[in-house]
Amino acid sequence: MNYSTIPVAQSVVLLCLEKGVKHIVISPGSRNAPLTIGFTAHPAMKTYSIVDERSAAFFALGLAQQLQEPVAVICSSGSAVLNYYPAISEAYYSDIPLVVISADRPIERIDIGDGQTIRQRNVFENHILYSANLYSEYVPDEIVTDPKLIQKQREVTKHNQQEINKALNKALVNQGPVHINVPFYEPLYNTTTQKLVDPIVLDQETKPVVLQDEHLQPFAEKWSKAKRKMILIGVLQPNTIEQQFLDILGSDPSVLVFTETTSNTHHPNFFTRTDNIIGSLDDQGFKDLQPEILITLGGMIISKKVKAFLRTYQPEEHWHIDPKKAYDTYFCLNKHFKVPVNYFWSKFLNRIRVPDSDYQKNWLQVRERRDALHQDYIKEMGWCDFKAFDLVLSRLRADSLLQLGNSSTVRYVQLFDIDKSLKVYCNRGTSGIDGSTSTAVGAAVGSELPTTLITGDLSFFYDSNGLWNSYIPTDFKIILINNSGGGIFRILPGDKTSKVFETYFETIHDLDASHLCAMFGLDYFVASSESELQSVQDKFYATTHKPALLEIKTPRTLNDQILLGYFSYIR
Amino acid sequence: MNYSTIPVAQSVVLLCLEKGVKHIVISPGSRNAPLTIGFTAHPAMKTYSIVDERSAAFFALGLAQQLQEPVAVICSSGSAVLNYYPAISEAYYSDIPLVVISADRPIERIDIGDGQTIRQRNVFENHILYSANLYSEYVPDEIVTDPKLIQKQREVTKHNQQEINKALNKALVNQGPVHINVPFYEPLYNTTTQKLVDPIVLDQETKPVVLQDEHLQPFAEKWSKAKRKMILIGVLQPNTIEQQFLDILGSDPSVLVFTETTSNTHHPNFFTRTDNIIGSLDDQGFKDLQPEILITLGGMIISKKVKAFLRTYQPEEHWHIDPKKAYDTYFCLNKHFKVPVNYFWSKFLNRIRVPDSDYQKNWLQVRERRDALHQDYIKEMGWCDFKAFDLVLSRLRADSLLQLGNSSTVRYVQLFDIDKSLKVYCNRGTSGIDGSTSTAVGAAVGSELPTTLITGDLSFFYDSNGLWNSYIPTDFKIILINNSGGGIFRILPGDKTSKVFETYFETIHDLDASHLCAMFGLDYFVASSESELQSVQDKFYATTHKPALLEIKTPRTLNDQILLGYFSYIR
Repeated sequence: MNYSTIPVAQSVVLLCLEKGVKHIVISPGSRNAPLTIGFTAHPAMKTYSIVDERSAAFFALGLAQQLQEPVAVICSSGSAVLNYYPAISEAYYSDIPLVVISADRPIERIDIGDGQTIRQRNVFENHILYSANLYSEYVPDEIVTDPKLIQKQREVTKHNQQEINKALNKALVNQGPVHINVPFYEPLYNTTTQKLVDPIVLDQETKPVVLQDEHLQPFAEKWSKAKRKMILIGVLQPNTIEQQFLDILGSDPSVLVFTETTSNTHHPNFFTRTDNIIGSLDDQGFKDLQPEILITLGGMIISKKVKAFLRTYQPEEHWHIDPKKAYDTYFCLNKHFKVPVNYFWSKFLNRIRVPDSDYQKNWLQVRERRDALHQDYIKEMGWCDFKAFDLVLSRLRADSLLQLGNSSTVRYVQLFDIDKSLKVYCNRGTSGIDGSTSTAVGAAVGSELPTTLITGDLSFFYDSNGLWNSYIPTDFKIILINNSGGGIFRILPGDKTSKVFETYFETIHDLDASHLCAMFGLDYFVASSESELQSVQDKFYATTHKPALLEIKTPRTLNDQILLGYFSYIR
Repeated sequence: MNYSTIPVAQSVVLLCLEKGVKHIVISPGSRNAPLTIGFTAHPAMKTYSIVDERSAAFFALGLAQQLQEPVAVICSSGSAVLNYYPAISEAYYSDIPLVVISADRPIERIDIGDGQTIRQRNVFENHILYSANLYSEYVPDEIVTDPKLIQKQREVTKHNQQEINKALNKALVNQGPVHINVPFYEPLYNTTTQKLVDPIVLDQETKPVVLQDEHLQPFAEKWSKAKRKMILIGVLQPNTIEQQFLDILGSDPSVLVFTETTSNTHHPNFFTRTDNIIGSLDDQGFKDLQPEILITLGGMIISKKVKAFLRTYQPEEHWHIDPKKAYDTYFCLNKHFKVPVNYFWSKFLNRIRVPDSDYQKNWLQVRERRDALHQDYIKEMGWCDFKAFDLVLSRLRADSLLQLGNSSTVRYVQLFDIDKSLKVYCNRGTSGIDGSTSTAVGAAVGSELPTTLITGDLSFFYDSNGLWNSYIPTDFKIILINNSGGGIFRILPGDKTSKVFETYFETIHDLDASHLCAMFGLDYFVASSESELQSVQDKFYATTHKPALLEIKTPRTLNDQILLGYFSYIR
């Protein structure tokens, strides 16, 4: 097989292999040629070519999200690497191991007027687990005869390998983005079949996790006494929590478990539609709901209403269970159990008692009543976003992957009780609209599951380069809810009739997706009414020869009133 | 008029006004509502709405490039602001005053799990002239009754105003990007007709520029004695250097002036096509060309050949004249005259003598011979990129603005002697392909000149969101040279026939621009041969009711041989 003749390029490829980085997303360039050559030539590596680095990084994020292993992105020097930053910040807050490898010019060529040259070292400082700033040890063979220089070069090689190890270990152990900046001297294109380096492989020491019984006991005591306990579960991979523990929690009359759609966690007694419960309470209702103890699990919480509730009606205790981090989202966190969640439950649940309580029973009654009102309200409403979501969500393919755009899409979906066989994801680390399509495509490729992306129009057109991708599976489906602008802004206060509102907040447009579908080879379907949507969905899912997009056109100005009316109706 | 009720929002708007920031590019969001409200309501402000922040920032860069005044971009909190980074780095290296104003959540809401919240403070550290990290002094009126708190709030207001002043002064005086991060408490949408702040306005002290005669004299002596002097002019605004000075330099037999296309600097004796001269010299030729003294003016140099030449055949002296910065591009810079260029020439040229020299005469003869060979070669060649450029460049509108994409486009254009009435620009700060279309649209709006963008296909499709812009003038023209991939990579070494080369370097595709034109309302023209191009150009320029795009399809695999053959032919 072929390697670059540049030792540091070989070190990067071989250490990625050692550490299990096998999916490599490459954007075109010349400075990164030594890496492109090395990765594309290696039979154990799966490489992808994507031009727009912003999209490439979100695609890699989607791959890593599904593969649950580090995925690398590689680009040339200059502003190219900065286009990775939105996906890096998403990876940082979503705990996804994205390995950013940027080619660079040698350090003495920075800030002297060379093309495509910026200050790449530590450029992602604010949102990166580790920045490995390498040096190129390459000086053409014919020049290196001085034994001292040869020794010096070997030292640089070893330093580079140490740094690569540190970065990849961080990505693996701490689950997040890392940056490896690799300067290269020319010539860039020379190859050899010879392995010039034998990289040192370092493991990151991990402390064994231990939760002492005597440490846990006081918490178990508090838990056992409390009659109102709430568990709130944010973003989680499917099957993270063992079902035996969920069953215990779900049948505990003193426990309410609120699960967000993105928690991928299920039990019949769990409350899947937080806003449906929280959204229409009065002060007495909030007081009745206020838990004595709150346990939070998983990542980001979508529901603004539950955040506002828990910040105002704070629990006496808030414990977060996560091996990596704990956010004080409700300003009352008083315990971080820094352990894997199943380990925690295995130790905790066998030392608690279940008190008498009608907490769960009462709120299940509220849920039942509101579920009925939910159905009534939908029957009554005309053609709108809410109605479209109801129809779309009831027709998704079982056991498929569901990717959701920000922000109205994911919020609407949370109002529904969706098929529990779905695996649900959304870029909630930063909640950006900048890479949902690219992420969804990467996730479809990584999971090899039938994948549906539901997205709003601003998010979809923002990331239209997500479709400039030759890896989109033929069973990939996009459902675009097009209400001609950022309809979510209509929910907010302020005058909705002014030109300023329409232009700078709602950002109205008259784009549709048909042209992009023609351009990028997607089958295009459209529905502009309830009956059209009902009749088109079968055809949409039946198409199998290429990916397909279903554009659902809804009226722009009704949705906010229907949504606000929902919360009055279910009260 | 309406202001936000939040004092810091008023401070930002009013200080922008004081400092002459009058063009404001806004991306939609809620957190930035206090700024959007303030700027859109102010009659002295011209506001624009663009959804994709990456494109919005390049659009603002194009505006600032032409207006030669600071232009602001405003976005919401979260990853939105990171999408500005490619344009910020371009502004940093192209010395363009881009004022980035990001809304943020209050500092205690960072890293606690709130949506659209990242670490925005100092996030552009590596490529920014100043980062102003403001605090929100807003606490609702009804809460602020304690006189101590009122005093504290006033102090925060004054601190913010100091910081805003510093940032805007830096952008104005040092010509580059600055970042103002503005956290806001809710409520965000309240307005008042009352001016709540009376901002302090600080001037940045600027030292008067003085070049002492006795300091200048030794340099004038050296210059007067040297028989071979070269002046190399990079990126400059049109009419930067007074014609009287150019005339003196152009008629000096001991001086060669090489002007890049983007220098916008003209004289009949100047060498406009650097690569045409440098590209085919042997060692003796280089020695004959090697100057004793090199003076460089302006910004980045495009020609790799002239950089390689001057690094190998270094001058004894290299002086750079620029009031801001000097790059040691050729590793032999020994003097930076940190003064305005006309001031330098006014002081310098009246203290020099002109020695006997046939330096200029000899090289003008070379130029004449090569100009003839250039014409011959073009006559002989078949349909290719080179031919397309020849036809396109001879048909541009006089006195119009010409915007060029990176990187093959700007390099091809440098091979031609183009109409001197054109004003020519290219994003050469970082030489990225990421924002050429957006920049060109911004420049067209800012200059109010008929504008033509010539771009390659990868650059064009990369920045397709540049067309998602409701401000594109009807006389805006795009000429897209579509050779189905990154043809420039074919010039580089390596096997051009492999699948790896085509996928990861050339990045071949079969996209055309017709769908994007239909989507975004551009008139579409296409030419796939010399005769088609000749016949379509008149129609292309005649269309006036909407912007137009001319797609020129050239064969993918011939261009590199024709280009390399050019340099052999003109030898």
